[in-house]
Amino acid sequence: MVLAYDGTDFHGWAAQPGVRTVEGVFAEAIRVVTGSAPKLSVAGRTDAGVHASGQVASFVRPPGTDPASIQRAINGMLAPEIVVRSARVAPRGFEARRRATGREYLYRIDTGPVPDPITARYVWHRPKPLSIARMRAAARPLVGEHDFASFCRAPKVPASTVRNLRRLSVARMGDEVHIRAAADAFLHQMVRSLVGTLVAVGEGKIEPVAIPSMLAARRRSAAGPVAPPHGLTLVRVLYGRPP
Amino acid sequence: MVLAYDGTDFHGWAAQPGVRTVEGVFAEAIRVVTGSAPKLSVAGRTDAGVHASGQVASFVRPPGTDPASIQRAINGMLAPEIVVRSARVAPRGFEARRRATGREYLYRIDTGPVPDPITARYVWHRPKPLSIARMRAAARPLVGEHDFASFCRAPKVPASTVRNLRRLSVARMGDEVHIRAAADAFLHQMVRSLVGTLVAVGEGKIEPVAIPSMLAARRRSAAGPVAPPHGLTLVRVLYGRPP
Repeated sequence: MVLAYDGTDFHGWAAQPGVRTVEGVFAEAIRVVTGSAPKLSVAGRTDAGVHASGQVASFVRPPGTDPASIQRAINGMLAPEIVVRSARVAPRGFEARRRATGREYLYRIDTGPVPDPITARYVWHRPKPLSIARMRAAARPLVGEHDFASFCRAPKVPASTVRNLRRLSVARMGDEVHIRAAADAFLHQMVRSLVGTLVAVGEGKIEPVAIPSMLAARRRSAAGPVAPPHGLTLVRVLYGRPP
Repeated sequence: MVLAYDGTDFHGWAAQPGVRTVEGVFAEAIRVVTGSAPKLSVAGRTDAGVHASGQVASFVRPPGTDPASIQRAINGMLAPEIVVRSARVAPRGFEARRRATGREYLYRIDTGPVPDPITARYVWHRPKPLSIARMRAAARPLVGEHDFASFCRAPKVPASTVRNLRRLSVARMGDEVHIRAAADAFLHQMVRSLVGTLVAVGEGKIEPVAIPSMLAARRRSAAGPVAPPHGLTLVRVLYGRPP
């Protein structure tokens, strides 16, 4: 299933007792619709406040259910806060998380003098001039396969922090600045950490030439601040041979 | 003051006892900031659920207050749900409502198969094919000075229902259809009534040739249904010589 959701009123994707999460609400809807509680696999475990327009989740379909009916019934219960954009039967053994070969995120920054009520839930309002040229210069050395230990929250169990960042682009769209990040997979808070650092560079607080030593330091304190979650949207998950 | 607001959680502009309205919340903020309750004049009395990106409101400034400080203080209290986009001192005798010479509204319809969580509060989700050509043909005879009694809620006190509709345009933007309406002034529910009728035409339920007789009938039941409020945004108010 390809999902879109407004993350504003959720404590992130992952089900947790006592709090409202996308997984919790979504799994409960599937249980009501199909009669059995699903074990969900998801491509991107979004944090609290993070949105999705192209999240992918999978579960083992109970016999006798079909994707179109499940989609319709779930949308009837949850839309427009959570929407099933499409649903289909996957090849046997498919798992949304394990089979994903890439994830793409969009981070929106609004540099206008005052916030816009229509976009405020989905952008980081930061009414200061940003140098796109400086941000692009800082993004360049981050692209590629690197140890991103400086740009993530330390994993709870020791695990590799090497990832392949395939794209980190910066573009101005009217009053907004859009940062797009694509990788094989992202570490916890990695996109927001990259964005926070690029914004610090764009505001003149960090020099683009400092980026390689930040990467080399491999500790969180070497990098810039972490951008707030509500500007971030998971836009696409890739399957099949990586680009 | 030029205002933007998300009308979702308000019972419209006009202050009413016991309900949350934009005017009520805004006037209270001005009272807190300036120390005196303002008598507000507003260009467009938006209905419950209707949004604004370019509303204009005015009030008599208490001595010793300046627009920039009032703007900053109000935004600190109300943004991002209500935002003062700009504030300045107007010529003596200015009144936002009486001096306005034009109003422009945008109505957004989402024709995609499922709603989009990010835009759902601001568009009418209507997942059916719409013929733009038919809608444009229906819009043409509506433009100009007409008695729009068929396209409004009857005024409580008898008053002219003649208005000059300067523009009624229909454009496709990806999955969305945007209807823009400009007039000297609009009657109550007039834009939503025009939109509801154009959508009925676009879906093949009303023929474009039927529009002139709808106008001539001068009764509400002659026109199509009223579109829901949440797709509508007041985008601009004009002052000075009408175009």
